[in-house]
Amino acid sequence: MEDPCLWTHRNTVSAAGLRIVPLPVDDDGARTAELAATGAGAVVLAPAHQFPLGSLLTPERRTEAIAWARATGGLVVEDDYDAELRYDRQPIGALQARDPQHVAYAGTTSKTLAPGLRLGWLVLPPDLVEPVLALREGAHVSAPEQIAFAELLVSGAFERHIRRMRTRYRRRRDQLLEMLATRVPAVRPVGISAGLRVLIELPENGPSAEELAERARALSIELFPVDRCYLKGHGAREGLVVGYAALPEHAFESGLAALGDLLAGAR
Amino acid sequence: MEDPCLWTHRNTVSAAGLRIVPLPVDDDGARTAELAATGAGAVVLAPAHQFPLGSLLTPERRTEAIAWARATGGLVVEDDYDAELRYDRQPIGALQARDPQHVAYAGTTSKTLAPGLRLGWLVLPPDLVEPVLALREGAHVSAPEQIAFAELLVSGAFERHIRRMRTRYRRRRDQLLEMLATRVPAVRPVGISAGLRVLIELPENGPSAEELAERARALSIELFPVDRCYLKGHGAREGLVVGYAALPEHAFESGLAALGDLLAGAR
Repeated sequence: MEDPCLWTHRNTVSAAGLRIVPLPVDDDGARTAELAATGAGAVVLAPAHQFPLGSLLTPERRTEAIAWARATGGLVVEDDYDAELRYDRQPIGALQARDPQHVAYAGTTSKTLAPGLRLGWLVLPPDLVEPVLALREGAHVSAPEQIAFAELLVSGAFERHIRRMRTRYRRRRDQLLEMLATRVPAVRPVGISAGLRVLIELPENGPSAEELAERARALSIELFPVDRCYLKGHGAREGLVVGYAALPEHAFESGLAALGDLLAGAR
Repeated sequence: MEDPCLWTHRNTVSAAGLRIVPLPVDDDGARTAELAATGAGAVVLAPAHQFPLGSLLTPERRTEAIAWARATGGLVVEDDYDAELRYDRQPIGALQARDPQHVAYAGTTSKTLAPGLRLGWLVLPPDLVEPVLALREGAHVSAPEQIAFAELLVSGAFERHIRRMRTRYRRRRDQLLEMLATRVPAVRPVGISAGLRVLIELPENGPSAEELAERARALSIELFPVDRCYLKGHGAREGLVVGYAALPEHAFESGLAALGDLLAGAR
């Protein structure tokens, strides 16, 4: 598993009785060159937008991941949960398209429509289709929502929605970055080219991420320290993950100002 | 587990690594007096309408089940999947209401609205709430459908829908029973007081349930032999389970006639 990564994914893998080997992530994505040395049989990657660092897996590392899978018979699980929401770059194809035999692709409407829909899909290597179907007995996605989503796709309404939201989220991201540059230039925003959140790396001479998250909570602002996403003892960065999608439009500017007060006041 | 029972439930329990002890079922429901001798720590019951026999668990046996749970600390899992659809009798309270500490209740809209909704709920003994929440991480029910269902409940529309469907399904059931009495009096319909299906017990001198199900399949009629619901070697009855809910209204009479032809011609 990428380290850091979404802790619920790590919990799921642990609960299945598998042993987790951490794969470090930097600003170019997971360090796929280190895959071979892990001895792992499978790797979970978020190539389009790593959580929580926001890195985009570089073309070289994509090639490395595929080469590893082919050489070892390993499986790449591609978590593509917010690839549609990119701002400053051209769309990048899924890793799955590069090697459908070795990559299991997972998509969702969690970020593009709503998490509460519980709509997701897998594109599996052919020999995994039957085993996965056997495991999911009873765990189906609501039929009315599948039908509604199909209609959104076929009619083009989904694509129009994505374009509209991309504009809106880009504007929010730009406002957040501008506020940070103006009011707290000592922090470093990371992983900003896609998705609905930014990792704010903190300077060494200020309060810790945990302290800031606690002060934020008292103001009804939810921030989470990025070290929660790391396996213990693996050199976590000191930073806060800030989501900018959930606030209603009318509350965004005042929310941004409150965040600015918090971070600027803390220095 | 009740024997016979829904095979998917048995598969779920087996897949969890538990050992299954069969509890025989007769026309009065599961033989709860035999619970103590099983040494089981939990039992899955469908008191309102046993699948596939359709029995209603008698008051005496309900009391026995509760007494067993209290004496042994055992858990009763109450599958109440179609209790709303009863025809010839007064509503019977859930077993769960008799002893909320020892009964885990499971309900669903699968039969009252549609299986494709994937809406269900549990009412758990207090000490099971946290462990179950921990296990279901990520496995949520769609929020829009929860909201829509809440509106159906609060507005009274759900209760009106149930009353309307009860009338419609009772009519279908009566037509099915009348057809059977007229055209194939040698069969015995069982479990007819509730739900959306009837078990048709076959006479000894005719073709087997498997033979009839195969002939039916050639006519696009899906019937299933009840022995599929029994653990192997446990004295299965010879019969066919016939659902009468799924056919559209305009096709019901012709479907019924085709079933009559099949069963009458086979004698």
